[in-house]
Amino acid sequence: MDAAVYTGAGILRIEDVPAAAPGPGEVQVEVAYTGICGTDLHIFHGDLDARVGNRAVLGHEMSGRVAAIGAGVDGWAVGDPVTVMPVESCGDCPACRAGNRHICQRLRFLGIDAPGSMQRRWTVPAETLVRIPPDVPLAEAALIEPLAVAVHDVGRAGLRPGEKALVVGGGPVGLLIAAVAAGAGGDVLVVEPNVHRRQVAEGLGLASVDPAATDVQEVVQGWTSGAGVDVTFEVSGAQAGVDTAVAALSVRGRLVLVAIHTTRRQVDLHRFFWRELALIGARLYDRTDFERAVELVASRRIPLAGLISTVMPLHRVGEAFAALEAGDAVTKVLIDCQEQPVAGAEAVPE
Amino acid sequence: MDAAVYTGAGILRIEDVPAAAPGPGEVQVEVAYTGICGTDLHIFHGDLDARVGNRAVLGHEMSGRVAAIGAGVDGWAVGDPVTVMPVESCGDCPACRAGNRHICQRLRFLGIDAPGSMQRRWTVPAETLVRIPPDVPLAEAALIEPLAVAVHDVGRAGLRPGEKALVVGGGPVGLLIAAVAAGAGGDVLVVEPNVHRRQVAEGLGLASVDPAATDVQEVVQGWTSGAGVDVTFEVSGAQAGVDTAVAALSVRGRLVLVAIHTTRRQVDLHRFFWRELALIGARLYDRTDFERAVELVASRRIPLAGLISTVMPLHRVGEAFAALEAGDAVTKVLIDCQEQPVAGAEAVPE
Repeated sequence: MDAAVYTGAGILRIEDVPAAAPGPGEVQVEVAYTGICGTDLHIFHGDLDARVGNRAVLGHEMSGRVAAIGAGVDGWAVGDPVTVMPVESCGDCPACRAGNRHICQRLRFLGIDAPGSMQRRWTVPAETLVRIPPDVPLAEAALIEPLAVAVHDVGRAGLRPGEKALVVGGGPVGLLIAAVAAGAGGDVLVVEPNVHRRQVAEGLGLASVDPAATDVQEVVQGWTSGAGVDVTFEVSGAQAGVDTAVAALSVRGRLVLVAIHTTRRQVDLHRFFWRELALIGARLYDRTDFERAVELVASRRIPLAGLISTVMPLHRVGEAFAALEAGDAVTKVLIDCQEQPVAGAEAVPE
Repeated sequence: MDAAVYTGAGILRIEDVPAAAPGPGEVQVEVAYTGICGTDLHIFHGDLDARVGNRAVLGHEMSGRVAAIGAGVDGWAVGDPVTVMPVESCGDCPACRAGNRHICQRLRFLGIDAPGSMQRRWTVPAETLVRIPPDVPLAEAALIEPLAVAVHDVGRAGLRPGEKALVVGGGPVGLLIAAVAAGAGGDVLVVEPNVHRRQVAEGLGLASVDPAATDVQEVVQGWTSGAGVDVTFEVSGAQAGVDTAVAALSVRGRLVLVAIHTTRRQVDLHRFFWRELALIGARLYDRTDFERAVELVASRRIPLAGLISTVMPLHRVGEAFAALEAGDAVTKVLIDCQEQPVAGAEAVPE
């Protein structure tokens, strides 16, 4: 069975590995599609070697069908369309005991701390499965995981209908946040310097602004009659994004921190004091967010297909990562984990 | 009538000025005591000259008795003991319209933007008056304003009984926050390097720790069995205080930002993401906080007298500021605005 195996910075190759048979309480899923996430790129760069080791199968945004069922698993049938909520919490740390299992202090993340879905068949604990309605295209269903992130982030904001929200950063998660916030009745503007991403935003029916060409704070002042926005989502991971997200907030505004900032940032704490702002960290999702994401996909209210730039077969996964790296004009790349290589295609240099 | 007049950095002198008669809607208060606040020290240093101008009467923490009543004012009698909630909001800016009048974007603060209470008689809008029960000592009543700040801060934290709270900074406001949090059922620890302030904390029945002698995070880990505290209050205004307040928090912990940070601070935003922390700005108080502070003082549940280091007469206000400046061993200094100088005392060099 083919699997994309990471063996060190910049190296990802297709290997023929045995499919893991499902043990008790496990289910084997025939993976249809796996999305490539920012975290996968970080791993590919070698940034998480201490965590993933020198031999790992990546991938945690996926869709597929139940292929085999382990002992003691009820409620699932071979062929059921599913996605996976790729986290396992310990149930016993202070975070779990306080009811925050999704940010368990010993969280095991499938695709990082355990093998992921960039393989033809993936064996996971049955409790991680999430059912997909049969009429949802499996390619779109592979975006349920990042959509659940967006649902969680909008939930952390406590966004109310009619509130104005600025999304700073228009990558896949930023655009999904913007779409979810708009769907929740928010009045949304995306800040994104990349012209391609702004075009994708427009394709999703979202307003956007280029911070390199426009004074974002001036736009915000005009848009909100001098009040500032109710909510900002910091999805850029950059110092400038933090500055924009803080400066744009109204009195009692909320900044939801979504992006990973690998170094400490300069923050204007005086403004937090003066305007009684709140900064709210948001990470991952819980089961409710995931189920809400499935509902949103099923309802067709989030046009997910518009986010999928390209679909590439598993044996070209290296190219897919390279496209994202280079990638001005790429939003979400999916890996088709079932398409077989054309005979002789593996001889073509990649 | 004597008033302490600020005329420029480091200069504060007693002048004989006419007492302002109360106009319509106003009340003249015979000031009993005025506390000196950190903001007054900033003004004294010249840091707020752009706002206060070159001729200002400071003071906004006070107690007194109604002395004269302007036209159209009902419900007050000469002799009533009062304090003043020293803010006037415009009622029309975005913050006011959104129900956040206490942080009005055109807030007028008595003692900064208008004359304050470091004078024998102070004329204020009747709507700023807050009634004090007759059995509350007026010296303690002068601490109701900073106590209202503490009530507001603990309210912003949403502190629940049994939660653990770390107060970073044991000045007057930090100690009041700690006392209010403990009174609300919190389990409280004060972090303060100054030995005098730690002694005052102990006098108030509050546990404290010296960050110069002890590893605060180690203490927190032991105290919370590795979870971290539920709430931290940043009252130090220093980078090190921010670091301590962020590092000590449990998953989903809340940092209430009370102190004024005059420059941007380095903040570990990754920890906000990873642990889903919240940073919550807290400024001033609203009417409810003020009334709650009066109740707390009246109930004798906050031992305010323990915070008063010294009481000095109005004509020695310069000395009082100097003591606070020098002041390792000073917590709260009150100015007695009615005590008359002893004959000839003004000739004594100060």
